[in-house]
Formats: sequence, structure tokens, C-alpha cells
Amino acid sequence: MPRDTSRDGFGNEVEAYVLTHFPNIWKWIQDTRPLARLANKTLINSAIGKIPTRPFAYSLMTLENVVPDTTLPKKQDTYTSWDSLNDRRYTGRHLPPDPEFNRDGNLPALADVAALFRKRDGKTTLSPKSTLLFPYWVQWFTDGFLRTDRVNRLRNTSNHQIDLCNVYGLSPVQTRMLRTFEGGRLKSQEINGEEYPPFYYGDPAAGTVKPEFDGLYVPLSDETRLPAEQKALLFAMGVERANIQFGYVMLNTLCLREHNRLATLLAGHYPDWDDERLFQTARNILMAEIMKIVVEEYINHIAPYNFKFIVDPASFPNQGWYRQNWMSVEFSLVYRWHSALPDTLAYDGKTMPMVGSLWNNEMLLRRGLGAMFEETCAQPATKIGLFNTADFLIDAGELPSVQLGRTAQLPSYNAYREMCQYPRVTAFDQITEDPVAQRELERLYGHVDKIEFYVGLYAEDVRENSALPSLIGRLVGIDAFSQALTNPLLSEHVFNERTFSPVGWEIVQSPLTLGDLVNRNTPATGKRYNVTFYRAQDAVAGRT
Amino acid sequence: MPRDTSRDGFGNEVEAYVLTHFPNIWKWIQDTRPLARLANKTLINSAIGKIPTRPFAYSLMTLENVVPDTTLPKKQDTYTSWDSLNDRRYTGRHLPPDPEFNRDGNLPALADVAALFRKRDGKTTLSPKSTLLFPYWVQWFTDGFLRTDRVNRLRNTSNHQIDLCNVYGLSPVQTRMLRTFEGGRLKSQEINGEEYPPFYYGDPAAGTVKPEFDGLYVPLSDETRLPAEQKALLFAMGVERANIQFGYVMLNTLCLREHNRLATLLAGHYPDWDDERLFQTARNILMAEIMKIVVEEYINHIAPYNFKFIVDPASFPNQGWYRQNWMSVEFSLVYRWHSALPDTLAYDGKTMPMVGSLWNNEMLLRRGLGAMFEETCAQPATKIGLFNTADFLIDAGELPSVQLGRTAQLPSYNAYREMCQYPRVTAFDQITEDPVAQRELERLYGHVDKIEFYVGLYAEDVRENSALPSLIGRLVGIDAFSQALTNPLLSEHVFNERTFSPVGWEIVQSPLTLGDLVNRNTPATGKRYNVTFYRAQDAVAGRT
Repeated sequence: MPRDTSRDGFGNEVEAYVLTHFPNIWKWIQDTRPLARLANKTLINSAIGKIPTRPFAYSLMTLENVVPDTTLPKKQDTYTSWDSLNDRRYTGRHLPPDPEFNRDGNLPALADVAALFRKRDGKTTLSPKSTLLFPYWVQWFTDGFLRTDRVNRLRNTSNHQIDLCNVYGLSPVQTRMLRTFEGGRLKSQEINGEEYPPFYYGDPAAGTVKPEFDGLYVPLSDETRLPAEQKALLFAMGVERANIQFGYVMLNTLCLREHNRLATLLAGHYPDWDDERLFQTARNILMAEIMKIVVEEYINHIAPYNFKFIVDPASFPNQGWYRQNWMSVEFSLVYRWHSALPDTLAYDGKTMPMVGSLWNNEMLLRRGLGAMFEETCAQPATKIGLFNTADFLIDAGELPSVQLGRTAQLPSYNAYREMCQYPRVTAFDQITEDPVAQRELERLYGHVDKIEFYVGLYAEDVRENSALPSLIGRLVGIDAFSQALTNPLLSEHVFNERTFSPVGWEIVQSPLTLGDLVNRNTPATGKRYNVTFYRAQDAVAGRT
Repeated sequence: MPRDTSRDGFGNEVEAYVLTHFPNIWKWIQDTRPLARLANKTLINSAIGKIPTRPFAYSLMTLENVVPDTTLPKKQDTYTSWDSLNDRRYTGRHLPPDPEFNRDGNLPALADVAALFRKRDGKTTLSPKSTLLFPYWVQWFTDGFLRTDRVNRLRNTSNHQIDLCNVYGLSPVQTRMLRTFEGGRLKSQEINGEEYPPFYYGDPAAGTVKPEFDGLYVPLSDETRLPAEQKALLFAMGVERANIQFGYVMLNTLCLREHNRLATLLAGHYPDWDDERLFQTARNILMAEIMKIVVEEYINHIAPYNFKFIVDPASFPNQGWYRQNWMSVEFSLVYRWHSALPDTLAYDGKTMPMVGSLWNNEMLLRRGLGAMFEETCAQPATKIGLFNTADFLIDAGELPSVQLGRTAQLPSYNAYREMCQYPRVTAFDQITEDPVAQRELERLYGHVDKIEFYVGLYAEDVRENSALPSLIGRLVGIDAFSQALTNPLLSEHVFNERTFSPVGWEIVQSPLTLGDLVNRNTPATGKRYNVTFYRAQDAVAGRT
């Protein structure tokens, strides 16, 4: 039986219908530059405008009594203080806490919630739309700005910007460790004729890092437990999570190569520039390139629309949402797409368990960057939703996420629907058409009003031709657009030839895909590596 | 001979004429709430819109090669880097550096420039408009956000917000030292029946501070050289400069009393609130009160207009200037009104040298807060401009300011006129009508194009009925409005009853003058202390 759509909201249905139909009209708009710019601006403003803009009235600071912190006085209640309005070490929040909803006994035991994520009879549902590159990209990309503090989960270690900290380090001190200070280049090494980051450990058996990387980050405990031969191949990169899986390493390596390629290119054009200027300008260009891929390739892959968003910074001089960035706990939770990562992957044509790819740089080094991208893009991701998470990500991913929602005392799933201008649901079959999911939700929560935010997000059915369920799509769009387009590099008096250099400005304004980046940073083989978020059957429709 | 106004700019002249004439029309607008709001919004947007908005493309970071800093690589040239776009420890700048203009030999020797500020034959020019409260307020107010780093003058120690750090400390660690943690109150003591901050030194003779204030700030070297009896009376307050002169101490003491008054008031209305909530809410209310006085009393005193600005946060949801605050070096220089501070002051009816009032809290304690405010408001400030600075502020104030402009490699005065939509001047008599000033400027600089920014600012004649010369007025307005109205407490979803409490919200929305604050925080005497920025002859015109 199809889902009951009576609570989708008429305005939402009209909007979705218009955006996913009339392909010829949208194509005409897309091809007519002034119309495309107007549509782009209108749709982005409309997406962000669905909820109140920053600054947030509250942050997770007001829950500091839950996780004691000696540097701050205890707080008994939720209210706005000067500190909570300014201290971005504490993660932001869109809605105030709801202690009543999160009180002991009102929500099912965490262990019971696991059943909602665990695969049924080991059955995996593939994504009809996305390749494995999609979850790899998502992990890499979001780890740059959604960075929950490992010690105090009310806090974060984010710079609140898309600053490629995963490549360049979290602060200038770390950045210095990764630079050669010659020709603007990042430190690298050659292996099998290809460029990679330098190795991190000086003595892998003893677990000691090279002195030059001392203080780069505090390794995750999983990393400290690795055998010496795996540690020996870990790279020195910007953040503590960068070696976690070879997909992350592929994207970091790609950025490293592009940075050094740009630095060399700039050095050729501007022979009187010193290392510092070459480095900074190459970084500016690379960040603008990634921003372009984020909006024009990645976000357009996520959205089911016939209109394709463009990077057009000049469109947003006077927007009410142009406020200082502040990552929110809701943004962090709507972006946890554990279920998109399969149990297994194909490597050199053979199936192997995904867990075997963790902390395993040998797999990348053996085959090289181009072949790895191509094979990654030749296999599907899994579908985002309940009952589809790999076992190793239930305890390590899903349950901590549910717990974070409770620690943050988030209001209910229905409260967030309301905030986002979706009518509250009144029955389980309005969330999903899956009768098993309906039954399990009812068994665990009893009433739709009692469904918690994180569970509700992933219980919704993925929209047709989209990569995401509706509420996730809306919330991701809001925080993503309103925090990406506020990047200072895109701002009115900075996004120009002076900032990027004449050579860089031309690069920034040229069309660019992730495939272009891969192919110009891998040894020439006479053929082009196929790099795409789209599974083969969709590739033509999606890429035109 | 009057000043040659041919280079004032037609648009500027029309604007100034309209705003300083037609008092009946302006009164009608002011009294018609929707029109007043519209005028307020239009005039503020127009003021800020005179120059490009933040983010700044450059900061003083790019001059780091001038003042070496081992944590950053040297930079040879000026360009935009990710660090310079994000690291607000470095002061911002409106115009890029002009190394050619600032090269050795192009500008007069610093010692020679002193002659432009030193009084001629000891003659002092009084301000026709302002009382001595004006320079006291300006020093106190600006020290909260224009905070050049004492060690590295390219940097600042500012929080880039009007956050009353002079009262509450620069960071939460300092704030804690100043709190009682009972009833939301700040630490205080009673002397002669009035409330003051606690004393800072535990053993004044040894120069050791009380353990509870260890780490509050690093005392200025002037403070460390004071005799024990003066140290004994220094107060523990938010920043290192707070005891520098009793005018600063008066305003800090006033805020302390108001904070504690508000905390007690809130505790009476909300008996279940803990200390933390009482403290934070009292602070929110006090900051909103000060913001109201800043805009409605102080800025309106500065401006010569017939329209009086109002605090109306809801007017600015979609402004292109609503960007993250960042104090600029130009803002710091346009706000150095040393010449407004007289050589002498009247204390208890007797004339004494201003230097005697430095670090001298005994003067305040002996007479009490109300009498000191009244006597301060019964004597004039001096006029802002050349040849009018007290001797002790030439070496300690004016010359370091000229030097900062050179260190920052600021372009010329004429370049800044151009940036602010004033035509470049072509002759000395277009700057000032004072023939001596014209002659001295010509002798030192030779040509108007060679006049440096800081000198040009103060060489301009003060506009009629204004407290300031034109270019200063324009630049102060731009940075002040665009950085005060972005205060998060005034933002769309924060400026409400939830943030301030119902009792506080009523206070925040009620009319308030500095005089109200003084009179409700001093022992009742049966009469009202007269507290005003306006000298007596202007008081009636100015206050209506």
C-alpha cells in the first residue's frame, strides 16, 4: 500500500511537483543565464527561508549540567546568555531543548532502537541513484565542518566553515606541519609514480609519530590499536579521522595533488611570488573548486529537481540568512548517512567486507588513485533509511547518534516537521509505506508524537529520484546553503581576480567536475576514468 | 576667510543640509512612529552604504613581516589568504596597504608631526557642544572593542562586540573572577554607603593582587609604577585599563550597580532562578540598556542632525552590511579623540591638572558617584582637532596613533576621502579654515595628496553643531552602526521577552538615559543629578 501523503502539505507537494516535472521548461530556464540566476537565487532563498535564520537563540551550552565542565558554571534551565550567543565551541541548535520529551522512561531503551537500523534477515537495499562515491564523499566532506567533540559531545572542534581542514589542518599551527615551505606546496611522497601525503608514523611499531607531525592531532583510539604494518601506511593529513577509510584518503589525496598542481602552475605564471603567496593562493583556488563541486555536482545529485543549482555568489548580497556560521546539532544528525555505506565492497573485482577497508591505505597504494575512483563509481551505495545499516555502524554510528539527540534534549520528530513547514504526521503510514517499519515504530514509540528526531528522519521514505527522505533533504538544504554560501571566499569584495590571481580566477570560473579533478591528477593512461555520483542507469539523465 | 567648500561634494552638501534644516518636518517624522522607523532605517543604511561592506579582503595580518611573529610565516606582499579572512586576532582594514606612500622619507618625521597636535601658546579651544562626560564616555565605551594588542600592534585583544568586557572581563574565565555566584551579582563593596567594585590588590605595597583576581589581566606598566597608597584603591574590573582615570571608573561603577540592581530585581520576580540565570539575564538587560544609550543618547549627541536615531532592531533583517564584526584599524584611528580631553578639570569646585586624575580612585570615593557625574557634566570638553591636545597625550596618544597608521601602511587622507565618497581635496584651505593649520600642513607635507590619514582626519574643521569633523563623522558612523546593530542580542530571534525575561523586556523597551541610570543607582538626595553630554546652552535644544 502506498504511503498516506495527506500530511505532506499542499505547498510542499506543489513545490516538489513543479521542481520535478516540466523538464523542458526547466531546461530552457537553465540555458537562459539571467533566468537561471534568478531561479537559482529564488530556489535557494526559498529553501533556506523555510525556518528561522541564525543567530540561534540557544546552543548546547545551556545543557552543560548534563556533561559537567569545570570551566563553566552549571546551568539548570535553558535560556539565552551572552556566552551561549557567542561561544561557538558549543554546538548550535535550531529548537530549544525539550526535557519533558527526553525524560527517563519516555523514550524506548537505546538497545531496542537498534532493531530499527539493523538489516532484516541480512537483506541490503541498494541505492537506485548513487554510487559508492556518494557515501565516501559525504563522510569526507562533512568531517570538515561537522565535528562533534570526542570528549564533550555538547561541544565541537569545527571551524564552522568549509575550509578543507581535513586537507590543511584545523589551525595554522597544523597547516605549517603539512607544508614544505617551498613553492607553495604541501608535503608529499611518490609511490608507484603517484603522489601521496607523507607517512605519519616515524616508528610504527612503537606507535611514535615523526617529530615534524607531533601535535598534528590526537589519534583516535581505533588508530592506536592498529598493528604496526597498518600504522606504517597511515598518512599525515589534516584531521584525526582522515585515515579512517580509503575513500576519505582518496579525496584527501586528490586535494593534495590538485593543491600542488595549482602551486606549480602559479609559480610558473608568477615567478616572483614567494612560497607563502603561492601556498595561500593555491589554497584559495582549491577551496573555490571544491565549493563548485559541492553545489553543482554533489547538491544537484542529492536534489531530485530538474533545475540544477549553480555557484553564483553575486546573487546574495542582502539575504537575511547571511549570518555568522554556526554548526547545529540538527545539521550533524541529518547528515549521518551510515545506511548509505554497504557491508561489502568490490575491490579489484572481488567482494570483501567494508570493515576490511578501514585504516587500510595499502588497498589504495596497491591500485592507484584513478583505478580506485573508477571502481568506486562502478558499484552502488546502499539506500538511506531504516533497516539498512551495516552491523559495524549500529553501535559505532546509529546508537551514538540517537543518544546525542537525547543528550541534546531535542524535541520530537513532529516538532521538527512543524519547524520545517511540514504538517505534523498523525499516523505511522504517513511516514513510510513499509508496513514492517510502521509496526516497529508503533511497537517502540506507541504514538507518532513520541517518535524522536533521529529515528523519524530516517524512517521517512526516500523521495522519488532523490537520494534522501524529505525532512532530511529540507534540513540539509537549509544548513548547507546558508553556511556554504557565507564562505568569505565567495563574499562580495573577495570573490574576484585579486584573491585568486588572474590564472586562478580563470580556473575558478571554468566548468569543473570531480572527474576533471581526478583525471588531471592521475598518470595519463590514454583513457578517462569515470568518476560520478550516479549509478550507470542514471548517469545520462543525471549528468546532462 | 571661510573654508573653501568646493570639494565637499554636492551630494554630501545636500544630505547635510537636509538633515540639519527643516526642524519642523523632522519633528513630525520623529513623532510619527512608522515614518521615524523608515527614516531611521534609511539614514542608517545610507550611512553604512557609503563604503564597501565586510568581510574585508585584507587584514593587518599581511603586514606580519613588519612585526615578526614566529607563529606565522613571513609575508612579502599583500594578498588575501584563508587565514587573513578568518583570524580576527589581526585587526581588519578598509583599504589595502600603500607601501609606496609609507616608504621611508615620504612622510615627515614623527617628532615634527607633534607640532600639529600641541597647543599653540598653551591656548585651549573648548567644545561648544560637549561636556567632559563626552570624552570620559568615549574612552570607556571604545576601550570595550577597540583594543590594539600592546605587544603586537597589528593584532587586537577585542571580542569584536559591544559586550561590556570592561565590566565583565574579556572571557568567561575573567567573568568568573568578578562574580559572587550568589543572586546573580557581581562582587562589590560598600564605601561611604555606596557600592563600588572590590579592591584589586591584596598587598598594595608588595604589588600583589588578591588571589581571587590572579589572572584577571596583566597590569599596564604605568599601574605597576604607582605608589602603594594609589594601588590600594584600584578596583578589580574587567580590563587592564579600567582604573586609568576616574571617568572610566565612574562608568564601570555605574554598570556594576545597575547589574546588581537588575539581578536583585529579577531575583524578586523569579524566586526559583539560580545565580547563573540571574547573572546572565541581568547582563543581557544591561547590555541592551547600554546599546540604547549608545544609539539614542551618545550617537545622537555626535551627529548634527535634526533626526534622532532610535534602536529598532527589527528594521534590519536583510542588510548587506549585516556581516560578522571585525574591528578595523581605521575605526580605531578615527576614534582617538585625545583632543577632547582638557588639560585641567574642576574637582569639588577647584581647578586641577587632568594628569592628577589618572589612576586616582580616591577622588571618586571621596565625593561619591552622583556628585562626580554632576560636576563632570557641569564643565566643558575641549574641541576635537589639531593644536588642542593636552601635553601628556601627545607622546602617549597622538604620536603612537600616527605611527600605527604608518605601521599599517595606510593610504593617504585623500584616498580615504575617495573611499567615503568625498571628493579628493586639492588645496589646504579645503580642509580647514585655520590659516595656521593650512600653513603647518603645507610646511610638513608639501601637497594635500601627501597628508596622512590620521592627520587629515583631525585637520578638518568640526561641522556646525556636530562634535566631529566630517570624515571622522562618516567613518565612525559606518563602523559603529554596522558593528553595533549586528549585536546578537539585537538579532531577530533573540531580541525578545524570552531572552530578557518579561520584567527585563519591559525595561529594555522603556525610555532610558544615562541620567536615569545614574539617578537610580545613587543614594537618594531629594534632587536629580544632571547627567548630560550637552553643555548647558545646548541642553534644551539637544535633549528635546
